Amino acid sequence: MSKRIVVLPGDGIGPEVCGEAVRVLKAVAERFGHHFHFDYHLMGAGAIDATGSPLPEATLAACHRADAVLLGAIGDPKYDNNPAAKVRPEQGLLQLRKSLGLYANIRPVTAYEQLLEFSPLRPDRIAGTDLLIFRELTGGVYFGEKGRTADGTAYDNCTYHPDEIARIAHRAFRAAQGRRRQLTLVDKANVLETSRLWREVVQAIAPEYPDVAMDYLFVDNAAMQLILNPRQFDVILTENMFGDILSDEASVIAGSLGLLPSASVGDGVALFEPIHGSYPQAKGKGIANPIATILSAAMMLDHFGMPEEAQAVRDAVDNALNERVLTPELNASVPYTTEQVGSFVAYGV
Amino acid sequence: MSKRIVVLPGDGIGPEVCGEAVRVLKAVAERFGHHFHFDYHLMGAGAIDATGSPLPEATLAACHRADAVLLGAIGDPKYDNNPAAKVRPEQGLLQLRKSLGLYANIRPVTAYEQLLEFSPLRPDRIAGTDLLIFRELTGGVYFGEKGRTADGTAYDNCTYHPDEIARIAHRAFRAAQGRRRQLTLVDKANVLETSRLWREVVQAIAPEYPDVAMDYLFVDNAAMQLILNPRQFDVILTENMFGDILSDEASVIAGSLGLLPSASVGDGVALFEPIHGSYPQAKGKGIANPIATILSAAMMLDHFGMPEEAQAVRDAVDNALNERVLTPELNASVPYTTEQVGSFVAYGV
Ligand SMILES: CC(C)[C@H](C(=O)O)[C@@H](O)C(=O)O
Ligand SMILES: CC(C)[C@H](C(=O)O)[C@@H](O)C(=O)O
Repeated sequence: MSKRIVVLPGDGIGPEVCGEAVRVLKAVAERFGHHFHFDYHLMGAGAIDATGSPLPEATLAACHRADAVLLGAIGDPKYDNNPAAKVRPEQGLLQLRKSLGLYANIRPVTAYEQLLEFSPLRPDRIAGTDLLIFRELTGGVYFGEKGRTADGTAYDNCTYHPDEIARIAHRAFRAAQGRRRQLTLVDKANVLETSRLWREVVQAIAPEYPDVAMDYLFVDNAAMQLILNPRQFDVILTENMFGDILSDEASVIAGSLGLLPSASVGDGVALFEPIHGSYPQAKGKGIANPIATILSAAMMLDHFGMPEEAQAVRDAVDNALNERVLTPELNASVPYTTEQVGSFVAYGV
Repeated sequence: MSKRIVVLPGDGIGPEVCGEAVRVLKAVAERFGHHFHFDYHLMGAGAIDATGSPLPEATLAACHRADAVLLGAIGDPKYDNNPAAKVRPEQGLLQLRKSLGLYANIRPVTAYEQLLEFSPLRPDRIAGTDLLIFRELTGGVYFGEKGRTADGTAYDNCTYHPDEIARIAHRAFRAAQGRRRQLTLVDKANVLETSRLWREVVQAIAPEYPDVAMDYLFVDNAAMQLILNPRQFDVILTENMFGDILSDEASVIAGSLGLLPSASVGDGVALFEPIHGSYPQAKGKGIANPIATILSAAMMLDHFGMPEEAQAVRDAVDNALNERVLTPELNASVPYTTEQVGSFVAYGV
C-alpha cells in the first residue's frame, strides 16, 4: 500500500521524537512492502517565528490532502506566561483539530508489567490496568466563544450540541464492544447543563449497545477513582476539558508520560501524536522518550488497516521494554538516547 | 466565648458525621469554658422531600445569623441519573455558598505518617506532603449562565471578574506567607481567556508579596504533578472547577476521603464541611469516618480565634490515628464505629 503521511515535528523535543517514529515507519514499509511518503511541514512556535502563524496555510492544506498526520509536540514557554500574546502555538493545534474534524481523541493507558516500579502508584494497584479514554476534541470550552466584556470580565463559553455528543459516544460504545464491554461516562451533571445533555444523549444511545455495561461518574470522583483503582475502567468517555485533565493524570499509571500515544479521529484524515508536550528543557539532549510517538505511529498503522504491521511495532516496543533499551527517565543506570531507542525498535519490527 | 453554630447535617452519612463533630465541639466548650449553641436546619435532598427546596428560607436565614455553619454532606443518587430533575440537592449548596459569599474554599491535604500504607501511592512519594488548596468557590462555570438554545445546544458560561480573582489571591498569598512561602497558580492559560485573566491578576498582585515564590502550572500537568510529586506544592490557587477536581484527586494522598476537612470563607459567616459526599450506601451503618468533619470543626475553632482549642482537637485526632481508633476503611481488622471514633476524639480533647 502507498500512503502519504504529513509530519508536523513542531517544537521542543517534537522533531526528535517524530524522527524516531518516522524511522520505525520506514522500517515497517520496508519489511511489509509498503510505500510511505513523508511530507514535513511547519507548526507551532517555530511556525510563528517563521511565518507569523502557528498553522500556516500550506501546512493545513497538506494535512487535508494526507492519508494521516503525525504530530510531535507544540508549545514554547515564551508564550505561556505572557497573557497578552495574541498568537500562540496552541491556537494552531486547536485550529488543526477543528479543521480536520478530529472530534474523538483516543488515549490508551496501559500499566506495563516491566515498568510497574516507575509508577508513583503501588504496583498492586495498577498491575493489569488497560483503559481507553475517549476525549471529545472539537467542542466544549475549548471552542466556545471567549473574550472580555466592557467591565473587564473574562468569559469562556462551554457548549455541546447533541450531535457532537452522539458521534463520539457511538465510537466509544463500539470500542467497548471490542474490549471488556464497559463504558463510563465522566461528567459533572450535578452542576453543568452540558453534562446533563451528555447524560441524556448517552442514555438514549445506550440501548443500541445492550452488550455494553454503562455507568456514570462525576469528574471529581473520577479523578480520585483513576488513582484508587484504575483497573475498574475499560472505556472512559468524556468531554474535552475533563478528558485533557484525566488523561494526563492517568499517565502516572504507565510510569512515564513518554509512553502514551494518542489518535485523533473524525470522519476524514486522522492525526496521531504523543500525549506529552514539547518539553523544551530536554530539547536536543537526546533524552526524550520516543516511544509515545512510535506507539502513535502504531495507532496510525491500525487506522490504515494494517493490524499486523501495528502489532509488529508494539512487539518491538515491548522488546525494548524487556531489554531495558530506554531513555533516562526509565533507565537511569544504563540510559539509551532517543535515537538508540528508535533504532532498536525500528530494527525489531 | 459564646458562639452560635448552625448545623446542616444534610443527606446520607451527613447526620452521623456531624453528630460526632458536634460531640467534639461540646467537649471543647466544656474543657475551655466556652458556650456553643447548636441550631439544626434542613438542607439537601432531605430538605427537598420535606419542603420542596434544597435550601429552605429558614435555613438560609439561620446561616446568615450564625457565627459559623457546620455542614455534613448533601446529595442523593435519585437525582444524579435524572437529567430532567428540576430541583437538585446541589443547587442548595451552590446557593448557600453564593448567598454567604464564601468565595474561598480551603482544603488542606496531609499525608499522615500513621496512614501512609493506606494510600494507593508509594509511601516515599507522599511522606511529608502538606499542601493547601485554595479553590475559588462562587464563580466560574458553576455560576455562569447555563441553559439550552433553540437547536438543543446546551451551554455553561464560565466567567471571572478581576475582583473575584484578586480577593482569593490575596488570601492565598497571605496563607503562603504563614507556611513555606510558595504559591502555584493552576490554570489553562494556553486555552482559556478566564485563565489568562487569572494569570494577569495574580501576576499583578505577586509583587506585594515578595517573600512568596510564585509559579504557574497548566491544570493537566498539575493533575499529573499532584501524583508524581505532591511534596513540591505548598499553596495551590485555582478556579472553581479545577479546584473541585484537583482536591478530590489530592485526597488519595491522605489515604481516605474521610480524613479531609475544608473551610469556606468570605467576608462574613464561614462554613466548614468535609470534602467527601453523602455516601448514601454507608448511611446508618456506623462505618462513616467522622474525622474529616471533626477536622472541619477544628478549622472552625481556628476561625473563631481559638488556636489552642483547634490544636487540642487535632492532637486528639492524631491520637486516634496513633491508637488506630479508626473506621473500617482505615482499620479493617479492628474497626471502630463512627460513634466510637467521635467519642474517642471528644474524650481526648
Ligand atoms: C496544548 C494544549 C492546547 C492541548 C490541549 O489542552 O488539548 C494539550 O494539553 C493536549 O492534551 O493535547
Ligand atoms: C456536590 C458538588 C456540587 C460539590 C462541588 O462540585 O462543588 C462537591 O463536589 C464539592 O466539592 O463540594
